[in-house]
Amino acid sequence: MMASTIFNDCSSCILPFNKIQLRFLHLGRSVVHFRINVYPIKPCITPTQAASLTTTFAMPSEPSAKVIDGKLVAKQIRDEITSEISKMKEAVGINPGLAVVLVGDRKDSAIYVQNKKKACDTVGIISRESLLPEDCTEEEVLKCISEYNKDPSIHGILVQLPLPQHLNEENILNAVNIDKDVDGFHPLNIGRLAMRGREPLFVPCTPKGCIELLHRYNISIKGKRAVVIGRSNIVGMPAALLLQREDATVSIIHSRTENPEEITREADIIISAVGQPNMVRGSWIKPGAVIIDVGINPVEDSKSRRGYRLVGDVCYEEACKIASAITPVPGGVGPMTIAMLLSNTLTSAKRVYNFV
Amino acid sequence: MMASTIFNDCSSCILPFNKIQLRFLHLGRSVVHFRINVYPIKPCITPTQAASLTTTFAMPSEPSAKVIDGKLVAKQIRDEITSEISKMKEAVGINPGLAVVLVGDRKDSAIYVQNKKKACDTVGIISRESLLPEDCTEEEVLKCISEYNKDPSIHGILVQLPLPQHLNEENILNAVNIDKDVDGFHPLNIGRLAMRGREPLFVPCTPKGCIELLHRYNISIKGKRAVVIGRSNIVGMPAALLLQREDATVSIIHSRTENPEEITREADIIISAVGQPNMVRGSWIKPGAVIIDVGINPVEDSKSRRGYRLVGDVCYEEACKIASAITPVPGGVGPMTIAMLLSNTLTSAKRVYNFV
Repeated sequence: MMASTIFNDCSSCILPFNKIQLRFLHLGRSVVHFRINVYPIKPCITPTQAASLTTTFAMPSEPSAKVIDGKLVAKQIRDEITSEISKMKEAVGINPGLAVVLVGDRKDSAIYVQNKKKACDTVGIISRESLLPEDCTEEEVLKCISEYNKDPSIHGILVQLPLPQHLNEENILNAVNIDKDVDGFHPLNIGRLAMRGREPLFVPCTPKGCIELLHRYNISIKGKRAVVIGRSNIVGMPAALLLQREDATVSIIHSRTENPEEITREADIIISAVGQPNMVRGSWIKPGAVIIDVGINPVEDSKSRRGYRLVGDVCYEEACKIASAITPVPGGVGPMTIAMLLSNTLTSAKRVYNFV
Repeated sequence: MMASTIFNDCSSCILPFNKIQLRFLHLGRSVVHFRINVYPIKPCITPTQAASLTTTFAMPSEPSAKVIDGKLVAKQIRDEITSEISKMKEAVGINPGLAVVLVGDRKDSAIYVQNKKKACDTVGIISRESLLPEDCTEEEVLKCISEYNKDPSIHGILVQLPLPQHLNEENILNAVNIDKDVDGFHPLNIGRLAMRGREPLFVPCTPKGCIELLHRYNISIKGKRAVVIGRSNIVGMPAALLLQREDATVSIIHSRTENPEEITREADIIISAVGQPNMVRGSWIKPGAVIIDVGINPVEDSKSRRGYRLVGDVCYEEACKIASAITPVPGGVGPMTIAMLLSNTLTSAKRVYNFV
């Protein structure tokens, strides 16, 4: 879901990208063929070139930022969840249950769903899956969701996005019972997230993962200036709302912002979620800032067996010399998304059985 | 509701204020006695003093800002609504209906409710009112709302805030049918307001009035930097969401913001809604900025017959020499709130009767 999130966001892209056919993307032992959007190579410029971009900016030459290890933190969280589920099983005899609804045959969506199911298995969440054909009707999807809404063994329902064009995403997401909306995308959850003195039942997984990384690395948020780059419903906007709930002073940058570099340079904390490889340059970053890079962008790489590699929205080579802490891509926010989905599913089950 | 909005917001105040007993506040021919929070005199400093506050800031000596006349615009909007309601009455035989629920005997709330009823009368909206005693139960309030929810002659329901302490505001506001939530406070409406590609059924009246003033004065929002001061659920937060929907780059300043002056000085558009008299000084304002001042703060004034006068959050005497346009207090945003309530009620009725 992460990568599709970013690709969905590309309607507001500035840079061009090419579609190339990729073969032999390995998933465990299976080999899948599908199309993926891959950006042409656009490497970060050298520190010397970057320094010349602005007279007030001098690029240090050595990496100094602490690496925020999302893979490690996600592993810790999965371990904590495993332990909690085992305690809950002992106390109330129940495992949490997650239902995933997948419509159509996008291979990338199929991979994300497989990864989620696998993650459920490792922590003790029972996962169920409904595969609906590409040409199914909205009614069929709604019926499937309605059954999971009624099923007491299911505590979370996830509709894998994107849906086929002919289906109304709003109607379908709204059909998920708010008590089982572990993706946190229901407008009622978003509304509560935006309002002071209200509590959402669930917070969207990727932005929740970003904040969790800040917490686990003891990075203080209160009173800090934060910039969120990107305003998607599933990452940028809820990330901004979460930062605000933690008393940061938040600015949101988007495709219509006239001077994104200047505004970003004011931030103590940067969360970038636009899907533009290496868009945030060293010159955009205030020395000592903390960077959470949500982008997962494939760029051409003839040296890689797959023909591409993954980079973030932030030019890592430059940023790691200026920031005080930064998430790598891959291995930063990516692994946190599924960890937060598991966490939301456990929360939901605990709520049902009043297990604290 | 406007003033209580601001007073409610005062939990995050920095400046002290005194409570004094005011008598003889005239409302038409009736004389009411009630307590009101009145700030001690804290006048704007002179231009010379202001100039010395910052080396980069020189205060011009003459007012140059265009005055954004909320009273005039509100009158225009009421006239438009009157004309639309008369056409609707002709076409479908129906007047829009607004129900106001008032709990307890706060005199200020009673005045706001009277003003709303009077405004309804002038445009052709039929208003109904339920007065519930201060010590009524939550169930009684919910029953009253439930009846209005079912009543087809009622297209908007407004619960006057603040409610007595023993009542749960969240439960009561959530009980209003979202199709009749003309205050726009339901989290489902706020969630839709926050989300791209979703449309709220109603937008909260005061922030909607702020944006409407910008529109009517042809002040462009897209791509502009906007600062919202204050993050209340009823003004600051929805104002920020509205500005963002119009493609401004928005920053939200609140009580935990460390350098509000510096951030505000970057803004092309400032919406202030904190309830702090004269907090925003001339030195906070970028030359040519547009200022929408939501604050309505009573300050001591021995020369006034009432013992106080109303001022905004922005030091008007300073700001009018630096800004390109500014709303006065009173006569700026204040009159727009009720106009937007009438507009929302008409919209609701038009939706029911499919009248375009």
